[in-house]
Amino acid sequence: MDDPTLPEMTQQECWELLRARELGRLAFTIVDEQHITPINYAVDDSGGDPTLLFRTAPGTKLLAVELGHEVAFEVDDVAGETAVSVVVRGRARHLEEDEAHRAEQLPLRPWLGSPKYDVVEIVPTAVTGRRFELSRPWLHLRLDR
Amino acid sequence: MDDPTLPEMTQQECWELLRARELGRLAFTIVDEQHITPINYAVDDSGGDPTLLFRTAPGTKLLAVELGHEVAFEVDDVAGETAVSVVVRGRARHLEEDEAHRAEQLPLRPWLGSPKYDVVEIVPTAVTGRRFELSRPWLHLRLDR
Repeated sequence: MDDPTLPEMTQQECWELLRARELGRLAFTIVDEQHITPINYAVDDSGGDPTLLFRTAPGTKLLAVELGHEVAFEVDDVAGETAVSVVVRGRARHLEEDEAHRAEQLPLRPWLGSPKYDVVEIVPTAVTGRRFELSRPWLHLRLDR
Repeated sequence: MDDPTLPEMTQQECWELLRARELGRLAFTIVDEQHITPINYAVDDSGGDPTLLFRTAPGTKLLAVELGHEVAFEVDDVAGETAVSVVVRGRARHLEEDEAHRAEQLPLRPWLGSPKYDVVEIVPTAVTGRRFELSRPWLHLRLDR
């Protein structure tokens, strides 16, 4: 999917998908170890430009945030023969207590309740989206058998 | 989702999900740049232990493979109030011409046809899967309004 001829989505279309979904995948690196994990997120507009917020318990994701590395986040959607995928690249930062309340205004919860959690914000540096047509010639091959 | 109390999936359950899906997300790093991209993949058993194959055109993904970094790959599925997510970590390698034919036996095509493609294999070093209950208290909040 590096094909540059693929139709890119507009910024507005990208944010529409980001606002419509609640599950994405966060990719980050810790000391050369590549990680990817699903997160429940929400778009936050309280600070002006939209950012993404998610909650997490202390652990690998939070460690990556504290280390200050760049992260990448992806959401996608498949409808019929068309798929869309939006990638947000940016820096993640651990919100201090006086900011963490922003999460309370959003439809954002840890999937499995943990009494303690931290709020992380992804501040986008680049948002890109692509649309794909799902050509699946093997489906016909299977039907022919 | 770093909560260690979350129920882990067995290796068999992980591979069942990997075999049932055709779209996943590949995370990789190039010189401190974090990337994540959707890929159409298939499980290949022709070499003994199962691996993942995908096709790609020359570009970012292939560059990461040539650089030999570790990659991480994720698939997930949401059904009702339950979600599952499987993460494969491993090394990606670019298949030489005499091996690339393995992709022809699989339901594997680039989503948008490009006449030239390369076949990449992900050789897993770790496969882990988790199950989540989707608690969504804000759904009730919204309904109450």
